[in-house]
Amino acid sequence: MAIAYLTRRERFNAAHKLWVNEWDAAKNVEMFGKCANSNWHGHNYALEVTVKGTPDPMTGFVIDAKKLSKIINDEVVEKLDHKNLNLDVDFIPKNIQPTTENLVVLIWKQLKPKITGCELFKIKLQETETISAEYYGE
Amino acid sequence: MAIAYLTRRERFNAAHKLWVNEWDAAKNVEMFGKCANSNWHGHNYALEVTVKGTPDPMTGFVIDAKKLSKIINDEVVEKLDHKNLNLDVDFIPKNIQPTTENLVVLIWKQLKPKITGCELFKIKLQETETISAEYYGE
Amino acid sequence: MAIAYLTRRERFNAAHKLWVNEWDAAKNVEMFGKCANSNWHGHNYALEVTVKGTPDPMTGFVIDAKKLSKIINDEVVEKLDHKNLNLDVDFIPKNIQPTTENLVVLIWKQLKPKITGCELFKIKLQETETISAEYYGE
Amino acid sequence: MAIAYLTRRERFNAAHKLWVNEWDAAKNVEMFGKCANSNWHGHNYALEVTVKGTPDPMTGFVIDAKKLSKIINDEVVEKLDHKNLNLDVDFIPKNIQPTTENLVVLIWKQLKPKITGCELFKIKLQETETISAEYYGE
Amino acid sequence: MAIAYLTRRERFNAAHKLWVNEWDAAKNVEMFGKCANSNWHGHNYALEVTVKGTPDPMTGFVIDAKKLSKIINDEVVEKLDHKNLNLDVDFIPKNIQPTTENLVVLIWKQLKPKITGCELFKIKLQETETISAEYYGE
Amino acid sequence: MAIAYLTRRERFNAAHKLWVNEWDAAKNVEMFGKCANSNWHGHNYALEVTVKGTPDPMTGFVIDAKKLSKIINDEVVEKLDHKNLNLDVDFIPKNIQPTTENLVVLIWKQLKPKITGCELFKIKLQETETISAEYYGE
Repeated sequence: MAIAYLTRRERFNAAHKLWVNEWDAAKNVEMFGKCANSNWHGHNYALEVTVKGTPDPMTGFVIDAKKLSKIINDEVVEKLDHKNLNLDVDFIPKNIQPTTENLVVLIWKQLKPKITGCELFKIKLQETETISAEYYGE
Repeated sequence: MAIAYLTRRERFNAAHKLWVNEWDAAKNVEMFGKCANSNWHGHNYALEVTVKGTPDPMTGFVIDAKKLSKIINDEVVEKLDHKNLNLDVDFIPKNIQPTTENLVVLIWKQLKPKITGCELFKIKLQETETISAEYYGE
Repeated sequence: MAIAYLTRRERFNAAHKLWVNEWDAAKNVEMFGKCANSNWHGHNYALEVTVKGTPDPMTGFVIDAKKLSKIINDEVVEKLDHKNLNLDVDFIPKNIQPTTENLVVLIWKQLKPKITGCELFKIKLQETETISAEYYGE
Repeated sequence: MAIAYLTRRERFNAAHKLWVNEWDAAKNVEMFGKCANSNWHGHNYALEVTVKGTPDPMTGFVIDAKKLSKIINDEVVEKLDHKNLNLDVDFIPKNIQPTTENLVVLIWKQLKPKITGCELFKIKLQETETISAEYYGE
Repeated sequence: MAIAYLTRRERFNAAHKLWVNEWDAAKNVEMFGKCANSNWHGHNYALEVTVKGTPDPMTGFVIDAKKLSKIINDEVVEKLDHKNLNLDVDFIPKNIQPTTENLVVLIWKQLKPKITGCELFKIKLQETETISAEYYGE
Repeated sequence: MAIAYLTRRERFNAAHKLWVNEWDAAKNVEMFGKCANSNWHGHNYALEVTVKGTPDPMTGFVIDAKKLSKIINDEVVEKLDHKNLNLDVDFIPKNIQPTTENLVVLIWKQLKPKITGCELFKIKLQETETISAEYYGE
């Protein structure tokens, strides 16, 4: 009864900025630099969702990758793609900075109840060629 | 006297939307779909600038790639990176949609007067993994 | 009236083999090596379609990339994806080897009549990390 | 005595289909969609093999990467490259679906007895740009 | 109090060779093959540094990625970029082979004392498209 | 009689420096910066060779890609891989800087006489993620 890990990659494009309302503009720029631009900036995000489980003896699937893709698209991608991460997304609290680190935790919480028959193992989000974050539910 | 082509790649992240002010919201959404989201979305852009010329007999350079990089950064990347392409950029006219096709033409015009000692040959801009545009000054 | 080039990338996965029916097995293996395996092999193909034209003054589009994507999917990807290129595809003649070079010519012919309002400029097909082919309608 | 991980990447191209013989065609298509195409389809697979161990004090190697490459090629790549994964491979049982999840387990079993002087840690197989699987011997 | 992982990627280009001084040329070539070329060879290295911690409630940062980038550049990249790994680097002992496995351990030791406010979790170094190594401080 | 373009990608790793013997150290460093490091640095080069021709009616090949690969390896890769581009290569004159621009011209001259049955069209050499050069025999 081997345990294998299956990863599905999806993509979305979104706008955001990093800005703490309790701070004045100078402190926001000092902390966040260009990321505090008041007119927003954006990214092409690549999202990798990894689940863990025993491949089904008949189908060979830990999970049907098309079914996993549909869950990710319904619960996450449709809500983030071509959206403003500070303003438009019901599962991102307004007082939470939409950093890569916070996004992987929020995406985990969004997906966790929907993954059945196997175990959600990892959320990875690539924000740029140089920055990515991961969350394992710890 | 061989003619070689040198390409330098730079990156920037920006927000934008596609929206024709003369049209109502319904027509904008019909034409531009998700790209018309009023709260913006964004991309990681990869910009490739290609110049053409004869390598210098002493240095072997068509152009010093570090000098080319500085020109691209001063004239283009600094003005686009972490900016809103509809609102923040002096060389993008407000009545022009910031599509990939229009951006390559505008970036060409921005760089053309600054490239000396060799010839600007091509601007390529990758907007997403699936969409890119090129301009050759035609 | 600038002329820009827009490229759309799509993907498909297919099986094929290289095999000349007029030759015996030994000659096929001599010519095609592992590619002549009688039980087929396959690839993840990445297809890039480039069109050329003047960006529309209102929309900034040479062509609506979503519309171009739909044409490529309807005319090419749906017919090739998860198919056998020797057996399953109406626009690949049975006496033509499904090499990368022949495929770019056949895909051009398939797409050419469907592209309106701009000009089909290039078909590029990446077969593996080491082999690709291009066709410009010459 | 530090413990480091060394990863070697190899590639192969193969045909396969997903098809349960005990099911009729309708049920196979319902479960596997396009992957059930009776005339096969195929992929460019990228295989990453990770071993774990203490770098040798003289050579600095956890394992000689050229030796590891030879083992992977002899035991796995030569048997899978340009082959049909349902029909041609001695170490893939005929009643097992050649899914990415099952393949990483089978490749692990194939390589495990051949890795000496360090420990096999992970098999990763990338099937497409959107699907990959991993196995850690659990 | 979720624990997330943040990864920053940096790059450097360096020369090296693999050569044990206690061995004669024949034994070095037998062991290291082309890597023993006495006039050196080189690589484009991609370095990924992963830290682990709880995102700050105000900033959403496990660590400020710009600050992490500065640490990596000051302590590692500036010392390795456009350098000879056998001759030029103070933190690589002269009797240690600059293999990918040894480099990840040495880079870990170089960075470990400088990372504060979160925990250094992983060093990954990609030497070529086919070889990479990782170190987790074990 | 369609004309298609076939591209084959190969890789090599090499050391080099940029240094004009007629200049003193200060002038070399002023011009070439880090690239003038006297102890060398190096790169993973990716070489793309494109040929142009009519696919053979029987084989579908502009050129047999395995044959093209063998020519590139015999004439170029074997002479550059794990070598010092300033010291070790018979077809790189000692008074020529091994810049990307000069290398594409020299590789063209090396390959041109060996390509038969089709036409050599382009040499592209990627030196880093940010710099590449091309030569078309002009």
